[in-house]
Amino acid sequence: MIRFNSDYTEGCHPAILERLAETNMEQTAGYGEDEYCARAAELIKRACDAPAAAVHFLVGGTQTNVTVISAALKHYQGVITAATGHINVHETGALEACGHKCLTIETQDGKLTAEQIASYVDGHFADESFEHTVQPKMVYISNPTEVGTIYKKAELAAIGRVCREKGLYLFLDGARLGYGLMCRENDLTLADVAELTDVFYIGGTKVGALFGEAVVITNEELKADFRYNIKQHGGMLAKGRLLGIQFLTLFEENRYFEISAHAARLAEKLRDELTNMGITFYVDSPSNQQFPILPDEVLDKLKEKYAFAYQARVDETHSAVRFCTCWATKEENVDLLISDIRKCIAQRAC
Amino acid sequence: MIRFNSDYTEGCHPAILERLAETNMEQTAGYGEDEYCARAAELIKRACDAPAAAVHFLVGGTQTNVTVISAALKHYQGVITAATGHINVHETGALEACGHKCLTIETQDGKLTAEQIASYVDGHFADESFEHTVQPKMVYISNPTEVGTIYKKAELAAIGRVCREKGLYLFLDGARLGYGLMCRENDLTLADVAELTDVFYIGGTKVGALFGEAVVITNEELKADFRYNIKQHGGMLAKGRLLGIQFLTLFEENRYFEISAHAARLAEKLRDELTNMGITFYVDSPSNQQFPILPDEVLDKLKEKYAFAYQARVDETHSAVRFCTCWATKEENVDLLISDIRKCIAQRAC
Amino acid sequence: MIRFNSDYTEGCHPAILERLAETNMEQTAGYGEDEYCARAAELIKRACDAPAAAVHFLVGGTQTNVTVISAALKHYQGVITAATGHINVHETGALEACGHKCLTIETQDGKLTAEQIASYVDGHFADESFEHTVQPKMVYISNPTEVGTIYKKAELAAIGRVCREKGLYLFLDGARLGYGLMCRENDLTLADVAELTDVFYIGGTKVGALFGEAVVITNEELKADFRYNIKQHGGMLAKGRLLGIQFLTLFEENRYFEISAHAARLAEKLRDELTNMGITFYVDSPSNQQFPILPDEVLDKLKEKYAFAYQARVDETHSAVRFCTCWATKEENVDLLISDIRKCIAQRAC
Amino acid sequence: MIRFNSDYTEGCHPAILERLAETNMEQTAGYGEDEYCARAAELIKRACDAPAAAVHFLVGGTQTNVTVISAALKHYQGVITAATGHINVHETGALEACGHKCLTIETQDGKLTAEQIASYVDGHFADESFEHTVQPKMVYISNPTEVGTIYKKAELAAIGRVCREKGLYLFLDGARLGYGLMCRENDLTLADVAELTDVFYIGGTKVGALFGEAVVITNEELKADFRYNIKQHGGMLAKGRLLGIQFLTLFEENRYFEISAHAARLAEKLRDELTNMGITFYVDSPSNQQFPILPDEVLDKLKEKYAFAYQARVDETHSAVRFCTCWATKEENVDLLISDIRKCIAQRAC
Repeated sequence: MIRFNSDYTEGCHPAILERLAETNMEQTAGYGEDEYCARAAELIKRACDAPAAAVHFLVGGTQTNVTVISAALKHYQGVITAATGHINVHETGALEACGHKCLTIETQDGKLTAEQIASYVDGHFADESFEHTVQPKMVYISNPTEVGTIYKKAELAAIGRVCREKGLYLFLDGARLGYGLMCRENDLTLADVAELTDVFYIGGTKVGALFGEAVVITNEELKADFRYNIKQHGGMLAKGRLLGIQFLTLFEENRYFEISAHAARLAEKLRDELTNMGITFYVDSPSNQQFPILPDEVLDKLKEKYAFAYQARVDETHSAVRFCTCWATKEENVDLLISDIRKCIAQRAC
Repeated sequence: MIRFNSDYTEGCHPAILERLAETNMEQTAGYGEDEYCARAAELIKRACDAPAAAVHFLVGGTQTNVTVISAALKHYQGVITAATGHINVHETGALEACGHKCLTIETQDGKLTAEQIASYVDGHFADESFEHTVQPKMVYISNPTEVGTIYKKAELAAIGRVCREKGLYLFLDGARLGYGLMCRENDLTLADVAELTDVFYIGGTKVGALFGEAVVITNEELKADFRYNIKQHGGMLAKGRLLGIQFLTLFEENRYFEISAHAARLAEKLRDELTNMGITFYVDSPSNQQFPILPDEVLDKLKEKYAFAYQARVDETHSAVRFCTCWATKEENVDLLISDIRKCIAQRAC
Repeated sequence: MIRFNSDYTEGCHPAILERLAETNMEQTAGYGEDEYCARAAELIKRACDAPAAAVHFLVGGTQTNVTVISAALKHYQGVITAATGHINVHETGALEACGHKCLTIETQDGKLTAEQIASYVDGHFADESFEHTVQPKMVYISNPTEVGTIYKKAELAAIGRVCREKGLYLFLDGARLGYGLMCRENDLTLADVAELTDVFYIGGTKVGALFGEAVVITNEELKADFRYNIKQHGGMLAKGRLLGIQFLTLFEENRYFEISAHAARLAEKLRDELTNMGITFYVDSPSNQQFPILPDEVLDKLKEKYAFAYQARVDETHSAVRFCTCWATKEENVDLLISDIRKCIAQRAC
Repeated sequence: MIRFNSDYTEGCHPAILERLAETNMEQTAGYGEDEYCARAAELIKRACDAPAAAVHFLVGGTQTNVTVISAALKHYQGVITAATGHINVHETGALEACGHKCLTIETQDGKLTAEQIASYVDGHFADESFEHTVQPKMVYISNPTEVGTIYKKAELAAIGRVCREKGLYLFLDGARLGYGLMCRENDLTLADVAELTDVFYIGGTKVGALFGEAVVITNEELKADFRYNIKQHGGMLAKGRLLGIQFLTLFEENRYFEISAHAARLAEKLRDELTNMGITFYVDSPSNQQFPILPDEVLDKLKEKYAFAYQARVDETHSAVRFCTCWATKEENVDLLISDIRKCIAQRAC
């Protein structure tokens, strides 16, 4: 079975395991107050061109989302999100379990626009019974989104502008950030992301680490007391250095970007070849998640050899599915997949 | 600096790192649904002599406590705990953040008794305005406790009996379980723990793993839908196999018990030698945490070379401190510590 | 200013004030454990033909919704509701503040269908990562809905059937229940409601009382320990008898139904007359809330004399607004309103 | 049965019922935005000598406590309270259900001291793992306390000073405020309370109203967006004018203070007479709750005729009980009680 069903199918970049082995019997302080975390934070701030940022390391994505959002909001405030946002769909109500409502907006492609946000907030305050509804105070976007689309620099800048005008915090979920930043269509840099948002995170779990997400806070208001929030949400790893060592390894020697570029390139190859075969896509995704629409009988055939995720039924005989590439994907497997799809389609055409 | 300040100062048992390296590029299913988790769960059930138990792997202790307790309780129910219980003191209110109150009982030694529990529950229901107070529904104990003391089999059996009589769930926090089970004074087995409680966890973070806690649920009522709770509390690790591999390595070849015994023996050595020097202890702890009472000037001297935790001021010139041993502690360092304490005391006596 | 903007513009049925005055200096037990509450509960059970039901009195609607729903759900469970449901829109996230997500379904008319519910639940369990999403466990409907529509008996029966099949609780918010039960198009009785749901409430605040909602629980599972939940949500009125006295007065001599019929009849009059004038409606509501679509200039004129609620812009020159009748509405005021609308329309037509 | 078991046994001051009847059929805006609420707020600000204060009306005490505290705290912050504080004991964990921990301090008499507060806060920040514990951010005191004791002006001023120094909000629960302010030993005025705290409430439920508590916020930081919090906690009464009318009636013509003085005087009479009989008290309470220690056989006798609350067993043959007076207590009943106690004691002495 060759797995394309997610971007967390393998372990981690081998350099990380080596570093873990080298440092294994060192004794360090716990809870992220060790030298490795300090050095990793420095590298990340440099990569973000954000020397005044606060950097914290957490274990996983759901935990990070909940920690960041609940740290920013008062009890009666909520977070604006695309209806497809991970926090709204795939976190078993973790945010609501902390007391906060997802204020959802329907989108075509998983991306919010500055206009939608402005209109939501204006609508809230124009309603004479506004105090009977949850006050919007933060905007949550993911880049790439849950369906692989990415924000262009101008779009993110516009959203950032609206957020400042309306007094909202802007939070970018970067679980797959590297795969967005390194794809062909991207025009954003890590420094842009740091400048245009109030807080965001650089995903490790899906991009080369065993686990771990690096939260980067640039808005002064959100920095205070953040570690209390981490602890309350179970994100303060006792052996915090494990996170420091991983991000140190990823951000030394440009590794984070190189392995992201590898995944991006393979996804583009898949996308280009399938497009050439005349296959259409459920979403026009430029990043490491590809959503081709394929005949069900082709999918049945592919299932014997490949793992992939079911996305949606398109018509009576076609479904959209998801193939992910990642830092660990072997090019030969992508080639094999392309060739097998080509064969299945061809057979079917006979 | 030689660290005795906690039991999570080093990485993990080297066999774990080896196994992680061996399996690194394998592709597996995510979220704990892989073969390694399945095999580790099997080994644990065997070690617990509890073939019908459900075993789940979570990342850290606070997360585990919150997940287990909130899964068991309705909104108006609370958990009885020693006032010194980890959930009451050192989790930044994680349980309250999930809506539940700690129902605290003062203790001398961090241990609850069956009588205290019975009396608390009887008192609740005897109060005519009982509906104005939180209903006790679970008992939380840690073994070893936060101050190193352990439950004897008869004590745990009595608590289990009271819990069944009063309709309470019994949850045992085993963050340091190995260090309790392998210490000289212990008469409990892992199978006893499984039999006498409704749910407990076997700590990995402090006992040889990089991180990870294995929850063992024996009460049928608590098994249903448990994975929803894990996800909601951010404990469902994407690369769940990391937990499976670690616990597999710890429970194959008896490693968990052997490394625990190592730590227990070194703590006993420290305890015995200090006792021989006439040093008294803040708590009479038989396990891997030792709380000697030492003159402040001796502590000032030791601080130059050793890291240890401050526990409490005892009188104007003496303080209680905490030294931890763990699976990774080197005997030579314990010997050095003993010898240095002896020297300091001797010098002072001159 | 003549107010049609809501159904809580006046105080209460005069018989209630009389009874409050008569009993004012009596001494009773607190917290709903007095004779008046007991007698009111008896009358309500009789009116519901539900002798085994549990009846509790709470102060307001938001409080009642939150108390009932959170009493029924475990932390990882949510409640299915129309997107327009009061709990989703107009309670400042009270339910999320208690940890639960609203699982929303879009509707045309504020009403859920049995098919929508079945499909939602089936979809949840068919998803292979179902544990990453909130588990549906309760269905919330309001009758009349927030836009005045009502459930016919066959519709409610179908929903009840689906709920039982799928293991969901069915909760009916009856803030305006009387106005639904007494309107021309209704074919439900109070006994039907009690039989087809697991729990519902009979609104007092909007139907003749100063305040107060009577929760009727017929499902045995939901009865246990309910008073703890009331207290936790601040709904256990110290002078609970105030609620007992009010519902006693409303359910003696058929008052609840008579005053509801009065409001229903006046709403029908308004609806019929406006329909005769060729005015169309935003929603086809048979109950005490009417949503005519009127020219903006007519509305500007009416505003000088009448209070009503703005509902939605329909086109550049028309808006939908809401007029409510209630137990206290004077027929002469409805006649005046009709006549003024007729005049405005006529003037405009010139 | 003559009831002294609580201070909410009767309805309300007759002037309130009259005013409710007079205004019953008036139409007003809902949710506290009517003229009566505005006028009542003005009177209260004048009585507090706090023209810039924000005044809000809520329905009950538990709701008010939860609303005020959760409005003031971030998720990781908690509230310091006497262990006997109402929020810690008698609200079914309502505060924890909103995510906040009670940080309890043991007291002799239900009163916190400035020193205890300072010491708690200093201890928190001195602990090197302070981020693992809940951050204290508010102090909750009740005046009179749950055991009837009161704060002297100097004590409250000292607490206020410590709170400002340490960056804590000071919240005073005045469920029985009138009974404290009007008792013999008191040296505080309402204006003092407003000046020395950041927020407090004036209880209506126990002092002459049917229900209702008036929150007075003097700290600017706590004023913003408060109504969202009221709504979220189910405290925004649809017919908000009911609260306005009640507080208007209580604060016109000095009624609130006069009726409080009545209750205070009767409690003092009871206290003085029992003291004269040689009876001792469980707590030395100067206000409307009295806690005499009486022989069990005397209590058995009294129980036939009087309702009172059981407080605590004192020794094998004596218990402490609670007798409350209130605005509605008849002096003849207090005299009867005194005389009956005297007789019982006398008979027993034979």
